[in-house]
Amino acid sequence: MGEFELIQRYFTRPSPGAVLGVGDDCAILHTAPGMQLAISTDMLVAGRHFFPDVEPHALGHKALAVNLSDLAACGARPMAFTLALALPAADEGWLAPFAKGLWALADAHGCELIGGDTTRGPLNLCITVFGEVPGDIAGPTRTQALLRSGAKAGDDVYVSGTLGEAALGLQQHLGQLKLDAPAAAACRARLERPTPRVALGLALRGIASACADVSDGLLGDLGHILKRSGVGARLDTDAVLACCPWSAHPIDAPLLRQCVLSGGDDYELVFTAAPAQAAAVAAAAQASGTPVRRIGRIETQTGLRLVDAHGQLAVHTMQGFDHFASTSPQTAEALK
Amino acid sequence: MGEFELIQRYFTRPSPGAVLGVGDDCAILHTAPGMQLAISTDMLVAGRHFFPDVEPHALGHKALAVNLSDLAACGARPMAFTLALALPAADEGWLAPFAKGLWALADAHGCELIGGDTTRGPLNLCITVFGEVPGDIAGPTRTQALLRSGAKAGDDVYVSGTLGEAALGLQQHLGQLKLDAPAAAACRARLERPTPRVALGLALRGIASACADVSDGLLGDLGHILKRSGVGARLDTDAVLACCPWSAHPIDAPLLRQCVLSGGDDYELVFTAAPAQAAAVAAAAQASGTPVRRIGRIETQTGLRLVDAHGQLAVHTMQGFDHFASTSPQTAEALK
Repeated sequence: MGEFELIQRYFTRPSPGAVLGVGDDCAILHTAPGMQLAISTDMLVAGRHFFPDVEPHALGHKALAVNLSDLAACGARPMAFTLALALPAADEGWLAPFAKGLWALADAHGCELIGGDTTRGPLNLCITVFGEVPGDIAGPTRTQALLRSGAKAGDDVYVSGTLGEAALGLQQHLGQLKLDAPAAAACRARLERPTPRVALGLALRGIASACADVSDGLLGDLGHILKRSGVGARLDTDAVLACCPWSAHPIDAPLLRQCVLSGGDDYELVFTAAPAQAAAVAAAAQASGTPVRRIGRIETQTGLRLVDAHGQLAVHTMQGFDHFASTSPQTAEALK
Repeated sequence: MGEFELIQRYFTRPSPGAVLGVGDDCAILHTAPGMQLAISTDMLVAGRHFFPDVEPHALGHKALAVNLSDLAACGARPMAFTLALALPAADEGWLAPFAKGLWALADAHGCELIGGDTTRGPLNLCITVFGEVPGDIAGPTRTQALLRSGAKAGDDVYVSGTLGEAALGLQQHLGQLKLDAPAAAACRARLERPTPRVALGLALRGIASACADVSDGLLGDLGHILKRSGVGARLDTDAVLACCPWSAHPIDAPLLRQCVLSGGDDYELVFTAAPAQAAAVAAAAQASGTPVRRIGRIETQTGLRLVDAHGQLAVHTMQGFDHFASTSPQTAEALK
């Protein structure tokens, strides 16, 4: 099977939402008047972001999911994506389930594949995703996208869904942890098939003051919001730990804390909203079918303070995952 | 140097043309009313698209150039790009010249870096590029982008600039060929620092009936136009060979022919236009400072026919480079 046959067989479908899709030098997108295009790109490398022997259907899902999660963080509606793929070989036994996993998630979000590139090389997947968000460059805010830069002192800090499961799943996979069967299955599913919180992101437009997705760990990603907004935060450690459904399990306490606070691959949304928006946040959570929990408050004083069960303060460095920092404590490092 | 410092130091600059650039979950682009977004993505793999020891400044240039070439083929004006980068290490001695080469070409085209991703892994560069092209989905043509699908029987076939130099440069580098010093330098420059024909692509809007860039070899890329347009072509082999400035050099004839007809990495434009547009084509070439040569004619009969010096017909398979075909005769295979 050659390159063009491969593209034709697995990666070519009608894309009625685009002016022009796969098959020309460029794809062409048209954005409706009053709309802007939100764009994000993520590269996944074998042995770093996933185990080389990961089930290809799950990998197809995850490669798109981590990109959709960025659109969710901006409150953008998914429209389209491009896929660049380096493959060691054109292996149909791998490509067929990979494409199936990719299309299943793409179809669920009405996100069309409009172009890409296929080459031979060490396994590497690079997806660029496009979403629509209202905005007017002549308007006062220029865009209605949710940004990292809008958090204000006094705002509540929220996080969606659950935290730490993907990191626990990785520890289990590495044999560092022995979870019971239901916990192991749930954590592995979260590691391999994250759920991008697209509906919640859309529902939070006009309500949240700042938003980011939790890909590198809660403290690191909240840290991005604090830095871009020029503020700090105080978090209720117990409330954060309660975001992990397995926190009552017999898991080594420092490891659990590490997974929940700094574990990566959660793909939840961490966001801020003024206290007056509390009812609107609850309504957005309900409308999107996504649990949301208040975990702290934005403060004028920069930095991140953790308040534990005894009311003590632990000042945290806010370090998330860094691909080039030798001290990164995190999931992907463990994959090496 | 950590991941975020690396991005800050080498890949963060103001992007006034974008609503939002590097530093948030998504970048935000606004397209003016009546304009559409042309999008292309290309992935470059070490040992496949470039020698692992290639000068990083040249690689920074080439990674963006091959993407700008796709915009040129559509007649789109470059606006912005994202860069996803897998690096074996955060080596400043490599990153600084790489970024310099990238920015020099980006600045020359007013193309802003608006986002990206950086990870550790086998060297891999994936750029997605965005350009602006007039169009109206409610209009009769939906887009004014140059497409591969518009060639009509009777149209002239043209190619810009020179052909075969990059492939000759590769053969020289591999020791398969001994060029004299000026030829070797010119061919190596073409291999390492291709010139995307952006100005010509813009000038051909409304004039060319179909267009593609020559990345996989003339016959392969013209073949894409013929297939998408449902037509065939007759090429004047002598006119094609005259596109190589070194065709009078003592180069093995079959090798020269191979490099000119099927050599990759030319990044010229192959396009078609009605005979009535001949003067307009010449004016576009002059206005954009890009030489253009007529090399053949579109015919109703499908397939590609080469007419040689003796008037004989050679029917060609139109095979361009295929990353997964074992028979690919081409440059990148030789890089393995």
